[in-house]
Amino acid sequence: MEEIRRTKSHGDKSRTRRVRISDLAQALGLTKSTVSRALNGYSDIAPTTRARVAKMAAQMGYAPMPYAQAVRTGRVRALGLVLELDAPDRYGPFLADFLGGITQEASLEGWTLTVSSSSSRSEMEATVTRLLQEHKVDGFILPRTQVDDPRAAFLSAKHVPFVMFGRTDHGRPDAGHSWYDIDNAGAMRAAITRLAAMGHRRIAFVGPPASFNFALLRRDGYREGLAQAGLAHDPVLEIMEVAEREEGAEAARRLLDLPDPPSAILYATDATALGAYDVARERGLEIGRDLSLIGYDGIPEARLVTPPLTTFAVDSHHAGARLAALLIAQLRGTDPAELTELVEAPLRAGGSDGPPRTRE
Amino acid sequence: MEEIRRTKSHGDKSRTRRVRISDLAQALGLTKSTVSRALNGYSDIAPTTRARVAKMAAQMGYAPMPYAQAVRTGRVRALGLVLELDAPDRYGPFLADFLGGITQEASLEGWTLTVSSSSSRSEMEATVTRLLQEHKVDGFILPRTQVDDPRAAFLSAKHVPFVMFGRTDHGRPDAGHSWYDIDNAGAMRAAITRLAAMGHRRIAFVGPPASFNFALLRRDGYREGLAQAGLAHDPVLEIMEVAEREEGAEAARRLLDLPDPPSAILYATDATALGAYDVARERGLEIGRDLSLIGYDGIPEARLVTPPLTTFAVDSHHAGARLAALLIAQLRGTDPAELTELVEAPLRAGGSDGPPRTRE
Repeated sequence: MEEIRRTKSHGDKSRTRRVRISDLAQALGLTKSTVSRALNGYSDIAPTTRARVAKMAAQMGYAPMPYAQAVRTGRVRALGLVLELDAPDRYGPFLADFLGGITQEASLEGWTLTVSSSSSRSEMEATVTRLLQEHKVDGFILPRTQVDDPRAAFLSAKHVPFVMFGRTDHGRPDAGHSWYDIDNAGAMRAAITRLAAMGHRRIAFVGPPASFNFALLRRDGYREGLAQAGLAHDPVLEIMEVAEREEGAEAARRLLDLPDPPSAILYATDATALGAYDVARERGLEIGRDLSLIGYDGIPEARLVTPPLTTFAVDSHHAGARLAALLIAQLRGTDPAELTELVEAPLRAGGSDGPPRTRE
Repeated sequence: MEEIRRTKSHGDKSRTRRVRISDLAQALGLTKSTVSRALNGYSDIAPTTRARVAKMAAQMGYAPMPYAQAVRTGRVRALGLVLELDAPDRYGPFLADFLGGITQEASLEGWTLTVSSSSSRSEMEATVTRLLQEHKVDGFILPRTQVDDPRAAFLSAKHVPFVMFGRTDHGRPDAGHSWYDIDNAGAMRAAITRLAAMGHRRIAFVGPPASFNFALLRRDGYREGLAQAGLAHDPVLEIMEVAEREEGAEAARRLLDLPDPPSAILYATDATALGAYDVARERGLEIGRDLSLIGYDGIPEARLVTPPLTTFAVDSHHAGARLAALLIAQLRGTDPAELTELVEAPLRAGGSDGPPRTRE
């Protein structure tokens, strides 16, 4: 390949002068062996040294002979991501941060990211198969897991490495799978604790389609929060399968029309919580006084509405970076079962929740 | 490589039974030669046939022998995209649509997309160099051009194929460059025509940093629109270098504090136009009556504010698909100079503009 590339380089000599490990070693004042072990991610090299070597490698334009290395290792050092174009919110406004996190971490380790998209399960399977057959990807990052995730099943059956953003199986995924997740249940428990402390006694929950794993975990957290606060769980206050803003509005209307309506609604996503703002306007209710709201996601619109929505802010850049790191570790040989990580989402208080107007 | 891959396939036989061109030809009822020419994008094969062959190839999991083909053609059939993490708005909410457009078009043609990111010019150059040296990318899509674009200069100097989203050099890029752009000036002219027809005589313009090519083109359109409507161009009504919402608010305050303030403001981006909503609230002005506003981009927040913002809706999916198609055509041998495309952005009327309260 090098030979071929040279003839294709349009007379630009700079692309044919390959930087070698010895050049890096000299520039860094390290031995060639240390540089090589650092570039290959050996754990006996300190992370700070690895980062220093990776940075210099990027600066000097060092690249391993990729095909030779691929033949030796069977790897092309590429992570794969298949975006699902049929996702209800197209990943919202966080995609740039998420991709930035993946690609920065991958780049630091000398890997790249191949992005594809699909708008159906069969297209996803065809795309994944093609990427593997063409040797364009070594393993996959799966965004937004479902309870019973066809992508995880498909990749497992083919023995293709992958890491999931979110768990499967209602939070109890196959022990052999790698995942990074945010503590969905913990966030919802914290929301209920907060609302109960303000004096709310009737708190509703509006959740996404139960096929998404995070939907079940957030509903669990709601129920656990009620139990912890000593509040009864009234099934009439729990509405699932709500994905869009207008569906969120419709859920709010149904809840407010109950004979004994809630004084607060916990929405599992910000996008659907915005629907409650529309209903409050329709009915002349003051949000934060007549009706308290808490969401989850931290989307920009949540800061824009009046009053700003109290929500949980997710760090998408960090999620992307950790998913890349976990997948690369797996591809380098770490047992997938050891590569699991659960983080907390911090609360971002707005003005949308407060003590109920009339305490019962 | 095939040999290697076979030994790595964990006993999964399905991955080693390669689908051949003859299988596709049989399934489609076409000759092998037609299928082969369709897969390689020959122009003597009708686009509908090409699409039908590409779809069947994806369904049946057909993939050309990639390394063999790369050696033959010097191509890895991969498009490159370097996201700039220092972009002010991180590409807003359109990234999923944009990536969906690129990847769907690329997939139809049997290509893939490699995504990287950078947060500085030197990092961008190091990343591009690494992707080329590692043979991971054949050419690049450059999102959001600057007037004097360092990426275009860098890639030109290295003779690396690329296509730009937007033009450079104040709309007169090097004749040898490929680009896709939206008619920025045309949209701004249309906005001024609309406001003038409503009776506005003092119309201000708030534009982005002049280093972005689209900023200059939108300002041109504003000035041309004024001239067409027979309105004088008053430099005090033109404010540039406005990138963020709060800066948009500050510009509105300055304009409204003028001895002879404007009755309408044309913002070159929706994000900055939202700042004018904040100022209207501060000052008790009714948007659409006391102050008319028009934006550009079609971001979701523009629908959310009251009244919804009149703006120009950009089709990011289409932009991504066309950029991919143009770059692939260039990589297959079409003269880059022939690969340029200018499209209109349609107006999406909200309630933010109307006749001025007092006609002068």
